[in-house]
Amino acid sequence: MMNEERLFPSEPSARAVAVKLYESVRNLPIISPHGHTDPSWFAENKPFPNPAALFIQPDHYIFRMLYSQGISLESLGVPQVDGKQSADPREVWRIFARNYFLFRGTPTRLWLDFALEKGFGLKDRLSADNADEYYDIIDKKLQTPEFLPRALYERFNIAVLATTDAAVDSLEHHKAILASGWKGRVVPTFRPDAVIDAEYSGFQDNLKMLGEVTNLDVSNWKGYLDALRMRRQYFKKYGATATDHGHLTAQTADLSLLDAENLYKRIFTNKLAPGDVELFQAQMLTEMAGMSAEDGLVMQLHPGSIRNYNTPVYEKFGRDKGADIPSPTEYVRALRPLLNKYGNETSFTLILFTLDETTYSRELAPIAGHFPSVKLGPSWWFHDSPEGMMRFREAATETAGFYNTVGFNDDTRAFLSIPARHDVARRVDCAFLSRLVAEKRLDEAEAFEVVKDLTVNLVRKAYKF
Amino acid sequence: MMNEERLFPSEPSARAVAVKLYESVRNLPIISPHGHTDPSWFAENKPFPNPAALFIQPDHYIFRMLYSQGISLESLGVPQVDGKQSADPREVWRIFARNYFLFRGTPTRLWLDFALEKGFGLKDRLSADNADEYYDIIDKKLQTPEFLPRALYERFNIAVLATTDAAVDSLEHHKAILASGWKGRVVPTFRPDAVIDAEYSGFQDNLKMLGEVTNLDVSNWKGYLDALRMRRQYFKKYGATATDHGHLTAQTADLSLLDAENLYKRIFTNKLAPGDVELFQAQMLTEMAGMSAEDGLVMQLHPGSIRNYNTPVYEKFGRDKGADIPSPTEYVRALRPLLNKYGNETSFTLILFTLDETTYSRELAPIAGHFPSVKLGPSWWFHDSPEGMMRFREAATETAGFYNTVGFNDDTRAFLSIPARHDVARRVDCAFLSRLVAEKRLDEAEAFEVVKDLTVNLVRKAYKF
Amino acid sequence: MMNEERLFPSEPSARAVAVKLYESVRNLPIISPHGHTDPSWFAENKPFPNPAALFIQPDHYIFRMLYSQGISLESLGVPQVDGKQSADPREVWRIFARNYFLFRGTPTRLWLDFALEKGFGLKDRLSADNADEYYDIIDKKLQTPEFLPRALYERFNIAVLATTDAAVDSLEHHKAILASGWKGRVVPTFRPDAVIDAEYSGFQDNLKMLGEVTNLDVSNWKGYLDALRMRRQYFKKYGATATDHGHLTAQTADLSLLDAENLYKRIFTNKLAPGDVELFQAQMLTEMAGMSAEDGLVMQLHPGSIRNYNTPVYEKFGRDKGADIPSPTEYVRALRPLLNKYGNETSFTLILFTLDETTYSRELAPIAGHFPSVKLGPSWWFHDSPEGMMRFREAATETAGFYNTVGFNDDTRAFLSIPARHDVARRVDCAFLSRLVAEKRLDEAEAFEVVKDLTVNLVRKAYKF
Repeated sequence: MMNEERLFPSEPSARAVAVKLYESVRNLPIISPHGHTDPSWFAENKPFPNPAALFIQPDHYIFRMLYSQGISLESLGVPQVDGKQSADPREVWRIFARNYFLFRGTPTRLWLDFALEKGFGLKDRLSADNADEYYDIIDKKLQTPEFLPRALYERFNIAVLATTDAAVDSLEHHKAILASGWKGRVVPTFRPDAVIDAEYSGFQDNLKMLGEVTNLDVSNWKGYLDALRMRRQYFKKYGATATDHGHLTAQTADLSLLDAENLYKRIFTNKLAPGDVELFQAQMLTEMAGMSAEDGLVMQLHPGSIRNYNTPVYEKFGRDKGADIPSPTEYVRALRPLLNKYGNETSFTLILFTLDETTYSRELAPIAGHFPSVKLGPSWWFHDSPEGMMRFREAATETAGFYNTVGFNDDTRAFLSIPARHDVARRVDCAFLSRLVAEKRLDEAEAFEVVKDLTVNLVRKAYKF
Repeated sequence: MMNEERLFPSEPSARAVAVKLYESVRNLPIISPHGHTDPSWFAENKPFPNPAALFIQPDHYIFRMLYSQGISLESLGVPQVDGKQSADPREVWRIFARNYFLFRGTPTRLWLDFALEKGFGLKDRLSADNADEYYDIIDKKLQTPEFLPRALYERFNIAVLATTDAAVDSLEHHKAILASGWKGRVVPTFRPDAVIDAEYSGFQDNLKMLGEVTNLDVSNWKGYLDALRMRRQYFKKYGATATDHGHLTAQTADLSLLDAENLYKRIFTNKLAPGDVELFQAQMLTEMAGMSAEDGLVMQLHPGSIRNYNTPVYEKFGRDKGADIPSPTEYVRALRPLLNKYGNETSFTLILFTLDETTYSRELAPIAGHFPSVKLGPSWWFHDSPEGMMRFREAATETAGFYNTVGFNDDTRAFLSIPARHDVARRVDCAFLSRLVAEKRLDEAEAFEVVKDLTVNLVRKAYKF
Repeated sequence: MMNEERLFPSEPSARAVAVKLYESVRNLPIISPHGHTDPSWFAENKPFPNPAALFIQPDHYIFRMLYSQGISLESLGVPQVDGKQSADPREVWRIFARNYFLFRGTPTRLWLDFALEKGFGLKDRLSADNADEYYDIIDKKLQTPEFLPRALYERFNIAVLATTDAAVDSLEHHKAILASGWKGRVVPTFRPDAVIDAEYSGFQDNLKMLGEVTNLDVSNWKGYLDALRMRRQYFKKYGATATDHGHLTAQTADLSLLDAENLYKRIFTNKLAPGDVELFQAQMLTEMAGMSAEDGLVMQLHPGSIRNYNTPVYEKFGRDKGADIPSPTEYVRALRPLLNKYGNETSFTLILFTLDETTYSRELAPIAGHFPSVKLGPSWWFHDSPEGMMRFREAATETAGFYNTVGFNDDTRAFLSIPARHDVARRVDCAFLSRLVAEKRLDEAEAFEVVKDLTVNLVRKAYKF
């Protein structure tokens, strides 16, 4: 299934350059600085249960497409809030297989083909005909030592894998991995949304837990900030090099101390004035930037997703079930308070992501092409795809250059898709560079340097690995 | 003029694939599920009057470009509100011919070249030199039986042609076509804007007429809704499978019954509070969705055009005279009330269109790639062009896939352009697919299936033909 | 460094067309209707001081990229508000040379390579290794007669060069050029922002100066407008054919005389009500349009840049130091008051620019493709680049055609980059046209006409040269 020249330009002179460039980076290790794999996989190193549980049920890219064509989430065995999940895994796999044509033209298809062929040696396209056979083969292999999480990590040639973890997380799995002596590097990322966003489910309980795990009084602004500082240190201790923030907007604020104290009082006591939730998130982005400038944790901002957009689906199936929809996102006015305070500090790194591609050339590249602190994250989520990545390079490079970008993030919950996603990213970068070379806009020798930078050097530098 | 490989990639390996794909769909029938042709043409089957009246005066794509270069609408014989229209058709044609170069690089030029060559056998580019000769040839042919509307419909290999009709329309022409025994299928589409948009010219009279044609009391909310239900049934009886809604925004609402009743009272009595016009339109989209879930009529939404933007032109020449301008359109928050109510129903189909291309990847593909009810209409109006169509495929496919799209709409008032427009759409789809094949992202065998789906299968299924 | 086929498509059939098209326009004169060169260069014709002062310190494209990578503006000798500027020019050049790789993939790199090779015969890529050698060569050449401003103007084959000048400017340099008998044509452009934008630094003093230079009483609305009219005549006398307006938004207004008088009173006396600054700018765009319809000066609108976004940089280094960031810009509703008043006048020309590419297909092309007065300026600033120019052609041409565009603007302060920028623009236009020809969407013979129109004819016509 997997042609060796896939994703390269069809024009022969450009393709030849792409092939050579790719050859130079295909075997470089995978640096995965941002993602959502489960650290318990590597701490416990137990077999994945079955093909449906591995490929389908954790991957909202897959079940959202199936759902969009009228296939119920129940029939796919997507876990429900009430704990019910009755679908037979083999039947789930069959539904998936007979609807595999739906993924034509999508990156999911590229990732799956890759995982089936490179991961399991399955070289024919998945279909209703081979569904059962493939199920059996995969199911059997999953029980072998070669398919345990740590073995896969090694086979995938991963050098670092960052997970994303709540601010109050004990990091027990990260500790266990460190304690185990296994040489894999699985590091946490500090994600404090649940103690910053007052509309987050369980927010008041989360605050309480923040006080408990730090043994600090978080009922006042100073105590709250100190507790966050302490948690950041804790994360650093177990390998974290970055924080991550998933706000609805990129709004920042720079309140006076008094205003911030009063705002926090209203937040803590849940006596909210209109706009308080948004203003507090805005202020906290600036506070987090300040802490990053102090402690060196790289700050990532992923704004613009309206989470749990489909209320009936959210109520039955909970978060992260494919019912998140992007919305227009403004960065320039939104980030100004933060940037005017910390944007010129060279000790601070802010990596910006977007689901609104219009901002690549209009806002993000001009900001990253000026502020020493700002770098551009790769094309994200719905844009983590061949066309999406290419549009990012085409729109951002001319103003931000290559060197204000930070390589690739796979950002996935689907462990098997990690090598596939990095492979697509490397190929698209080679394709983009090969066009620049073929159009005599970049020397070939330079392209070899750039592609290596895009694959490993920029990500190591930006994320301090 | 018309090279057989037009619109295909110039790179030979991709082009070869495009040629083969096109060969497989070029002779498939035209399914035209959304457009603005005049049903009286097919009911009466009279000759078109002259080349200017056929090509220029009904086609705002043409006269808006000429007007933008300082050519007056009067000189082109564009009909005026006061009924005046004095230009000599031959002189209009000459103006058009000597300014034909203005259309270089536009889809209008492709459609016109096609119509002249394929329709009338005129193989040299239109120019001042051949203007009179071409006028005479066309004018003469229009009087022959082969160029009567029904003959053209058949020659164009049209299988279904949907018109767009006011909610209170008698559908007399559609009835006459059915009664005539002619085998052509010309179906109406239910377009209730004029009884939903309180700022529509003649709105109060339209409401009155709605009451008259249904013999229902539309002075209250229930009566009004019942009248609309009755009209939808009437449209279905004469072949309609769809409704269409041309609102300024995509805003929807989900009011309580009491609020909706009171809102309608203010609308009906023309005692409007601020925001009532917009809120009523918003509520009515949700009502229409509910009726579609009941009666199965497919719902189309075409938001985002500021109609009659150029006041002096509107006052002299009326609606649809090229003075409509798109505006930024938000879908995600706007559609949420409707989608949360009906979006998960598999008996409901909502086809979304846009004039704001930024929404393809940011909003529309994520929505269509999740909700079972939602499908994406093709690139519309100013984007119904080779580059526009290609951008749609590139931006929407990776998230929505091919199977949440619905094939092509020609959306035209210019009958002669129908085969030309479908030809362009087929060629661009072949070009897009050929690139996927040439870049090894899709198997060639799959591409043959997809191109047929894009040409006939998806449109038949989505629009229930 | 400079391959003769740079920027052309790599596919051979398209490239062959591009080569031929380029051959037909490469030697045509440069018409530069909008830019920011310093007229004193041509009035005084003194040598440029040194390589850093020529290439780096006036060019915010260069130092913003270096700054974004943590290189201080002080170390680059960027002039400061307090007059300090201590960096050694050779050291500045060395920093630039060893960071030259940062510009890979940017237009700046293309312009610099061009200037070094074509301007100074330096054929190896600039690097740390050749930095000193190149510095010496350039520095020496700058002292020779061949590198004086007028000689360069002639060598660059410039036919007209427009500068941008404050409304109250004496135009002494333009007068001196005219008086000198030198055949170069350096014309001013009327830029009244500083007497229209009440937040412009020194606004009240600027108003005072406007009264002084015109000897009119500008304390009332009529006097103020008369003073502007008089200044426009003055600019016309010294060669101006255009005005330019750099507002934050494209908002226009059409106030009653009384409202306008009262608004001006508040502006003049600095007793501002909320929104007055914006409303006054909006009203003034409409007034300027009216004056353009009277006196024939072409009106240019460059909205959407948030100037001096980075406050610390602005405070230390002043305006135009790379800290301007684009923001989303709406044109349709914003321009309606102006367009409904003057948009249909054929004696009026309004050239629209944008930093928000989403408006090309959504707003600007539909407006320019309808209103006789409106033309589209080329892709601007952050989009004045190969990909940016290509996106402009791809997005705007299908609706606006080629003939509602106005050729290229270099818009630069960097004199040496002028031929490089025009060369890039010509090559990209050839590349775009070559694709249309290779895809059989345009005849080759037509493409030869179009490319000449895009290079010289449209700009001459639109700007009345």
